[in-house]
Amino acid sequence: MEGAKTLASLGEFGLIRELFTPLGRKDELVDQGIGDDAAVFSIPRTQQLLTTTDTLLEGIHFNSDMDPFLLARKALRVNLADIAAMGGLPKWYLLSIAVPPNKPLEWLEEFGRGLKEAGEQYDVFPIGGDTVGSKGPVVITITLFGIVGEDRAMKRSGAQVGDKIFVSGTIGDSALGLSQRLGSLQVRSREDLVYLKHRHQLPEPRLALGALLQESSLPHACIDVSDGLVADLGHICAASGVGAEIDVAKIPFSEAAKRQVADHGEALLGIMLTGGEDYELLFTVAPGMAEQLVADAAEKTGVMVTEIGQVVKSDDHKPVVLKDGEAMSLSGQGWTHF
Amino acid sequence: MEGAKTLASLGEFGLIRELFTPLGRKDELVDQGIGDDAAVFSIPRTQQLLTTTDTLLEGIHFNSDMDPFLLARKALRVNLADIAAMGGLPKWYLLSIAVPPNKPLEWLEEFGRGLKEAGEQYDVFPIGGDTVGSKGPVVITITLFGIVGEDRAMKRSGAQVGDKIFVSGTIGDSALGLSQRLGSLQVRSREDLVYLKHRHQLPEPRLALGALLQESSLPHACIDVSDGLVADLGHICAASGVGAEIDVAKIPFSEAAKRQVADHGEALLGIMLTGGEDYELLFTVAPGMAEQLVADAAEKTGVMVTEIGQVVKSDDHKPVVLKDGEAMSLSGQGWTHF
Repeated sequence: MEGAKTLASLGEFGLIRELFTPLGRKDELVDQGIGDDAAVFSIPRTQQLLTTTDTLLEGIHFNSDMDPFLLARKALRVNLADIAAMGGLPKWYLLSIAVPPNKPLEWLEEFGRGLKEAGEQYDVFPIGGDTVGSKGPVVITITLFGIVGEDRAMKRSGAQVGDKIFVSGTIGDSALGLSQRLGSLQVRSREDLVYLKHRHQLPEPRLALGALLQESSLPHACIDVSDGLVADLGHICAASGVGAEIDVAKIPFSEAAKRQVADHGEALLGIMLTGGEDYELLFTVAPGMAEQLVADAAEKTGVMVTEIGQVVKSDDHKPVVLKDGEAMSLSGQGWTHF
Repeated sequence: MEGAKTLASLGEFGLIRELFTPLGRKDELVDQGIGDDAAVFSIPRTQQLLTTTDTLLEGIHFNSDMDPFLLARKALRVNLADIAAMGGLPKWYLLSIAVPPNKPLEWLEEFGRGLKEAGEQYDVFPIGGDTVGSKGPVVITITLFGIVGEDRAMKRSGAQVGDKIFVSGTIGDSALGLSQRLGSLQVRSREDLVYLKHRHQLPEPRLALGALLQESSLPHACIDVSDGLVADLGHICAASGVGAEIDVAKIPFSEAAKRQVADHGEALLGIMLTGGEDYELLFTVAPGMAEQLVADAAEKTGVMVTEIGQVVKSDDHKPVVLKDGEAMSLSGQGWTHF
């Protein structure tokens, strides 16, 4: 590595200084950010704190050759989606990163540039973290903090029998983008390929929509679709003690995704409904109450919201996906890591 | 692996349920713990939140054969030491764990048992986390939350020229325990071996002492000794814009450690002063102000506190270790990961 600056040549404390410290910002709530044993901050009196954490592993969640600028933005965005699902306002984060000492400095600089870009876009900044050497994979853990008004957070556990089920955006694009990357899907059109890859690599946290839903007080339950539409609906069902029926004909798919189903057959639907990483919002609202909300979502946040089914009584608290009135048999209940 | 229950056979969500959920407890400040997109909690009106995060990697911070019951307790304790250094009261934590699918379930159960034991001992419990599959090492990230009165947190940045420097407990035991494990130190006495290994494997977070120091309002700066006495004193110097002189003859060493120096020579001192993982508290107090504090520490917390030097003016903000009045040349400025 002669001539190339690596992490080893910079040292751990140098890395912290060069990569993280400049990303910190002033904020009247943050008393102590990066640079002490712990961060110290306050939250406004009428607010509660939200916190969520996600770990991304090289070789599992991303490939070694993934663009670090993209990786940093995705790592922040998947956490932002969790704050969106609670209806909160994201504020600060902790970053723990494990990297091999021979990692080129350029990789870290690009990673830092991604954090900066996403931080500016979503108005969040780091208040602490940890950097450690790794003999193996890069490991990234982001813990994100947000705030929300007292008793205003949207949980998974409030769905009621009779509620209508809604989802934002389109479902399955990310799973198709991943399938293409893994070589199990051939995407014919160059334009579709770019779109599906983008949806997988750079999900859009629905923060404005989450805030709108929370302010409306209408959703009884809300979750972000990270494990897959069916699995995440299952999480709502389990937490709320209910069942759910959704109709595959109502689920919003992008034109690009529809073209893949046309080209490769309906078996793709299973991947799309269980593949995960959509990071769309899935929520339930009492019947007849959501019309204005759906219109507001489109007008104020530019996000399409679609009714896809209803909450029903059920003993096993598992969702059912109907196709032409019959329950579909899906290969899995969503993507699990094991 | 026929017959042996592994992580793969249990599944990710099963793991979360079996391992973490039973560790959650009720707490009037926690509105939503494990089981939603984000945890939701409040902090008392007169308090600030403290948060710290540490990542432990298999092969770097612990060996593959490390007892998982011990590992879980150590992972929590190193974070608790950071809250102690700020003078806070630990409350809750997030746990992210990456484990290979073929990990025996027994390993995870023992890890969970360690979390439970440490959680009960220090009155902390999990409010969320993430579990992911790993193709390589086990990776553990704990993010710990504590609370502290408004403007009461002890930071690194307040040390003043003339302050006396104090440290709790004894320094270097952990580094000697690690050296023994790595095969670079032969410990003659069985009793010393047990003691030094224990100090490395199961550090004692000085929470009661941290609270006492904070309540006294006397420390101008405080840090926990994780990177090594010299490096952590250097962090205080850098953050406070001062220098420091400590006298090696004043640094508290255990009898077991002294016997190693007697057996193997004074070269060991370098390891002891820079090896890190002592997790003792290092702090500075205005001259003549600490007598009562030192007595209280011994009486109320059972922890010995020793004066080891003073804060001085310095342009490079680096600490100097004196031995017989001469500056010692130490191999490093403390243990770094790269």
